[in-house]
Amino acid sequence: MSWNSFGHLFRFSTWGESHGPAIGAVVDGCPPGIALAEKDIQPFLDARRPGQSRFTTQRQEPDQVRILSGVFEGQTTGTPISLMIENVDQRSKDYSEVAKAYRPGHADYAYDAKYGLRDYRGGGRSSARETAMRVAAGAVARLVVPQVSILAYVAEIGGDRIDPANFDADQIAQNPFWCPDADAAKRWEALVDEARKAGSSLGAVVECVATGVPAGWGAPLYAKLDAELAGAMMSINAVKGVEIGDGFAAARLRGEDNADPMRPGESSGGPRFLANHAGGVAGGISTGQPVTCRVAFKPTSSILTPVETIDSDGEATQIATKGRHDPCVGIRGVPVVEAMMACVLADQKLLHRAQCG
Amino acid sequence: MSWNSFGHLFRFSTWGESHGPAIGAVVDGCPPGIALAEKDIQPFLDARRPGQSRFTTQRQEPDQVRILSGVFEGQTTGTPISLMIENVDQRSKDYSEVAKAYRPGHADYAYDAKYGLRDYRGGGRSSARETAMRVAAGAVARLVVPQVSILAYVAEIGGDRIDPANFDADQIAQNPFWCPDADAAKRWEALVDEARKAGSSLGAVVECVATGVPAGWGAPLYAKLDAELAGAMMSINAVKGVEIGDGFAAARLRGEDNADPMRPGESSGGPRFLANHAGGVAGGISTGQPVTCRVAFKPTSSILTPVETIDSDGEATQIATKGRHDPCVGIRGVPVVEAMMACVLADQKLLHRAQCG
Amino acid sequence: MSWNSFGHLFRFSTWGESHGPAIGAVVDGCPPGIALAEKDIQPFLDARRPGQSRFTTQRQEPDQVRILSGVFEGQTTGTPISLMIENVDQRSKDYSEVAKAYRPGHADYAYDAKYGLRDYRGGGRSSARETAMRVAAGAVARLVVPQVSILAYVAEIGGDRIDPANFDADQIAQNPFWCPDADAAKRWEALVDEARKAGSSLGAVVECVATGVPAGWGAPLYAKLDAELAGAMMSINAVKGVEIGDGFAAARLRGEDNADPMRPGESSGGPRFLANHAGGVAGGISTGQPVTCRVAFKPTSSILTPVETIDSDGEATQIATKGRHDPCVGIRGVPVVEAMMACVLADQKLLHRAQCG
Amino acid sequence: MSWNSFGHLFRFSTWGESHGPAIGAVVDGCPPGIALAEKDIQPFLDARRPGQSRFTTQRQEPDQVRILSGVFEGQTTGTPISLMIENVDQRSKDYSEVAKAYRPGHADYAYDAKYGLRDYRGGGRSSARETAMRVAAGAVARLVVPQVSILAYVAEIGGDRIDPANFDADQIAQNPFWCPDADAAKRWEALVDEARKAGSSLGAVVECVATGVPAGWGAPLYAKLDAELAGAMMSINAVKGVEIGDGFAAARLRGEDNADPMRPGESSGGPRFLANHAGGVAGGISTGQPVTCRVAFKPTSSILTPVETIDSDGEATQIATKGRHDPCVGIRGVPVVEAMMACVLADQKLLHRAQCG
Repeated sequence: MSWNSFGHLFRFSTWGESHGPAIGAVVDGCPPGIALAEKDIQPFLDARRPGQSRFTTQRQEPDQVRILSGVFEGQTTGTPISLMIENVDQRSKDYSEVAKAYRPGHADYAYDAKYGLRDYRGGGRSSARETAMRVAAGAVARLVVPQVSILAYVAEIGGDRIDPANFDADQIAQNPFWCPDADAAKRWEALVDEARKAGSSLGAVVECVATGVPAGWGAPLYAKLDAELAGAMMSINAVKGVEIGDGFAAARLRGEDNADPMRPGESSGGPRFLANHAGGVAGGISTGQPVTCRVAFKPTSSILTPVETIDSDGEATQIATKGRHDPCVGIRGVPVVEAMMACVLADQKLLHRAQCG
Repeated sequence: MSWNSFGHLFRFSTWGESHGPAIGAVVDGCPPGIALAEKDIQPFLDARRPGQSRFTTQRQEPDQVRILSGVFEGQTTGTPISLMIENVDQRSKDYSEVAKAYRPGHADYAYDAKYGLRDYRGGGRSSARETAMRVAAGAVARLVVPQVSILAYVAEIGGDRIDPANFDADQIAQNPFWCPDADAAKRWEALVDEARKAGSSLGAVVECVATGVPAGWGAPLYAKLDAELAGAMMSINAVKGVEIGDGFAAARLRGEDNADPMRPGESSGGPRFLANHAGGVAGGISTGQPVTCRVAFKPTSSILTPVETIDSDGEATQIATKGRHDPCVGIRGVPVVEAMMACVLADQKLLHRAQCG
Repeated sequence: MSWNSFGHLFRFSTWGESHGPAIGAVVDGCPPGIALAEKDIQPFLDARRPGQSRFTTQRQEPDQVRILSGVFEGQTTGTPISLMIENVDQRSKDYSEVAKAYRPGHADYAYDAKYGLRDYRGGGRSSARETAMRVAAGAVARLVVPQVSILAYVAEIGGDRIDPANFDADQIAQNPFWCPDADAAKRWEALVDEARKAGSSLGAVVECVATGVPAGWGAPLYAKLDAELAGAMMSINAVKGVEIGDGFAAARLRGEDNADPMRPGESSGGPRFLANHAGGVAGGISTGQPVTCRVAFKPTSSILTPVETIDSDGEATQIATKGRHDPCVGIRGVPVVEAMMACVLADQKLLHRAQCG
Repeated sequence: MSWNSFGHLFRFSTWGESHGPAIGAVVDGCPPGIALAEKDIQPFLDARRPGQSRFTTQRQEPDQVRILSGVFEGQTTGTPISLMIENVDQRSKDYSEVAKAYRPGHADYAYDAKYGLRDYRGGGRSSARETAMRVAAGAVARLVVPQVSILAYVAEIGGDRIDPANFDADQIAQNPFWCPDADAAKRWEALVDEARKAGSSLGAVVECVATGVPAGWGAPLYAKLDAELAGAMMSINAVKGVEIGDGFAAARLRGEDNADPMRPGESSGGPRFLANHAGGVAGGISTGQPVTCRVAFKPTSSILTPVETIDSDGEATQIATKGRHDPCVGIRGVPVVEAMMACVLADQKLLHRAQCG
């Protein structure tokens, strides 16, 4: 079943194919009276936009967003906000090969198995291009949770991890990798260049921290804050793993080492926690600590090296990507991860307010 | 917002507190004409039931399930199936300490922050006791996808991993750890015993494999099979991480090493894949390969060692669990992981059939 | 598709068959901190209970409700509230006739066409007995909207309408018909007695007024307050028509006669309206006026007169109801209509608070 | 809460304001492999388009629909279908009066009470212009249920009803009123002309019949076919009442007169029914008979006669519509009613297939 909507109350539905006339999102449930204009959304799209360094695909799309509804005299009206980006870089290209053969690691075969047909031009609906609309929706979501700051960055490429001791948030926007460790960014240049030149690709891990989330957002069981985050992150193209807080590392800790002891807090607010192994969520509900998650991106499946595959008649063949190629799709995942975090939090804020006033 | 329902079409809603009169689930959307009786559900509950070895909590609950509706003359009627388990081991216990102080790692503080009050008896709604109803719902779900076999097991406790070379599915039910590696099971006895005696606890990793899932289940974007699995698994108590296929390890592979090349298959079905790094899902849709996931359970938060905390007045105090104590909650997660896999697959089967006939 | 849940945020799911061991409802999304006990629910169930006069079916059910979860120390905790009523009047009766032949006007044939089987004992899931759980859920909903007063009454039986000039709210509980017009109640005694003795049945119209609904509840398009009410009321057994405000009569008015002119209101609140043709809803959103609706109940389909029908083999036969028989099912619809009004309003209150704070 | 999506599985979400740059709908869940082009949608939009006779508003909109996604090589792909209509008749008009004063019968006051602001240009989101997108979505829905024929017509204007003896389906498209009775159409010319010239407006009743609906679509309780239809129809602008089958008239029948007796049917299919008081639905599930409903439209609230009202400061004033004016909005409701019927049936078809295969 096609299911192109995300969220319970702050909801967005996306549409569009990589090589169709446009892509778009309809954001519904946004509170009224929020100042909103294209300029509040465009910077996030610009951050995600490909073709800005040699480390991402060279597809050139201005990704200029238009607001078609839901805003009046500069303010949200509480009615659906329609966002649209026209596709301009629709090269008339020869798709005969990809039309017939299935690219391993791509959705080609699965789509055909499900639907009996697929729009194969540029990946169609399964293209990472769809994530532009998540980023646009996320920009609106941020305005719904102004109390929250969201920061994502790449923590690992091709198995090479940043050194936490070198963490410097100011570095993140200073290099083409959204890397908070200047040394690692240097190393990654060589690493990604090598993969790019070899026609190969690398995976990455993106980390995301949301500070300012008050205690009490979330739900006891099936819309748990962490469960919603896990689903949201795993829905991003190329993602294969999600951790909240310490994640898999927590499975290697003893109970006493995994505890987040609590001490009396300052006058203003909740308790002071002595650690945050839990990633800011207990029992599915935020604790007031930073909400943290880690997201694993597989290496881009489109590589220049030929891979064994079959065609739509079931015959053996080979396929290799030609032309533009993204050596590490995880890099461009950073604004997408931030956007999904924002959307989940905006949704949870409204859900919480609904039940608890 | 309280959100106690799971699924789109094959849905279940659970209710009940650890120390209330009963817990239950309402399963809605189950196809009609399926043979169903208590005996189809009870074995899965028995597998999850605590108190069966010294490695799990000594709480004694027979967990006898009753079907109260939705079945007539031994068959599902297509109407809601109400399942109920009466709580019998409600010790009249002194809850004054836990009523006042917040147990770190538990939902106590977060619930109070959200709701302003909580049922503190035995963890109330946040108790792992709720997972019994997931297991019951999962038993029904299995009957909806008879073509699928689901197998979960513990792959790691306290950082000690099984050796894949020793994998023997027949071992799984032969030891108290659901461990497929007889050697590891031996080691874990000592490991868990040590933690138990020390009043500590250990984390675990559960792996789950579903074979027989046909190609085509899932959805392109926001009800992706892998995203639904991630949300489902992360909603289980104590889970902090979820991986599909190679998960985080995929982020350390190169594109060519992560590919799952395809070869012409046998007459009957889809292609033959030469690897399954993807865990049976591409673009959110099943490929016909086994669907695999890994789930990280943190160490039980309830430990005998006192931990620093605050009370509901914000004053500093300490708290330690007294009495029954579960040294590795991940062990009992095995049937729960299987149940959530079954529920996701049953739901996706119905969703797929709805759109694609 | 089985769909046994109602509501977006304040939600309830019902389960159970007429002659199964019990029926129940799970109410989810209820705000925390509301005082709730069985005694807040039971009076509404008692009002709906059959067998209280000769004008309703003689089935005897005490309909004693139990709260199994979601309440702690007399207050709602924000977690699901499980409500259950055990079925005690399950006469061991001969169902062989109804098992085989389809009762016209009943769901028998439609259920078999959909599901291939049905629980035919006492109507199974399609029995009006299910409405007891709506009434129970509605009793909880009322506590969520304490600012609202809900009053329903029978306005017409068998085509004989009350005289608005005789309307006296105090009369409603004084006669077995929930009739606000003492004269009409007198006439209805004869009318319903005649039908009862003739083995026939009569239809009825129930009207419902909710006062105290603040302006602003509802939604612009697909969860319009009036659309939700229409769906809610039409989902009640035997209902065939719903009107908001003047309803079909509005279709016979001219624009100037249908206007609800506005005048400056008192200091405290909104405007003063000079009429309420709209029934308190404009553009799907409440205006602050009383929310009014009218609900048409068909005559009970179970009558003592034989009706031509077919059996499950498609052969011609006849069927007549034997034994207990409800000469005017609309009478018992009054508490059910009130309950659905309460549930819709509670849901809309939470939805409004979510988006607009 | 803004809620701009309709349907469970066959879903559409609409967006856009009367005087914004465009309006649109995203249709999700449509089965793959259905031939679809703009030409399949445009005729229904043309039927709904205003300005085609002097009996509807003179607003001139070509309402040219574009398909922006979800269709590839002439076939639906199973992914979301984005439909858009650019608004071309956005007269630069003086809105200062309507910006300040509330038009009785319109959503103006309710929107302000809910959201604190509104897009007042041409009614903004509450404009009947939104129904164009329902019609577009309905055109897609029809292709999902090719076995069903849907026919709506106006049965009553200003209290003047068609004579069933004159019913001639071929007449419906032959007059500007979608009237199946040539005599009535004649009378209505004079009736509507009089109202138009007097600056007044009239209500109307639209009837809709869907033939070819197989037995078994629908659900036992809260997604009952009739309940879904009631909600769908009541969500249309200006609708105040909905009846299924005999509706309110059924409340005036005796049980034996309301029965729909069944006789053995032809070899091919279900039983033969001797009547259809139920309107093709029993227990919320279709019986195989024609599904019928009646929908009451109030007279247009925008009239040239001044009406007493207040302004946004709460001061007394008067307001009258100037310029274009729709003397009977119910006429243009015909294609909208058909569209909502189609959408409900498409949704129910998929829901049924999901559970029952």
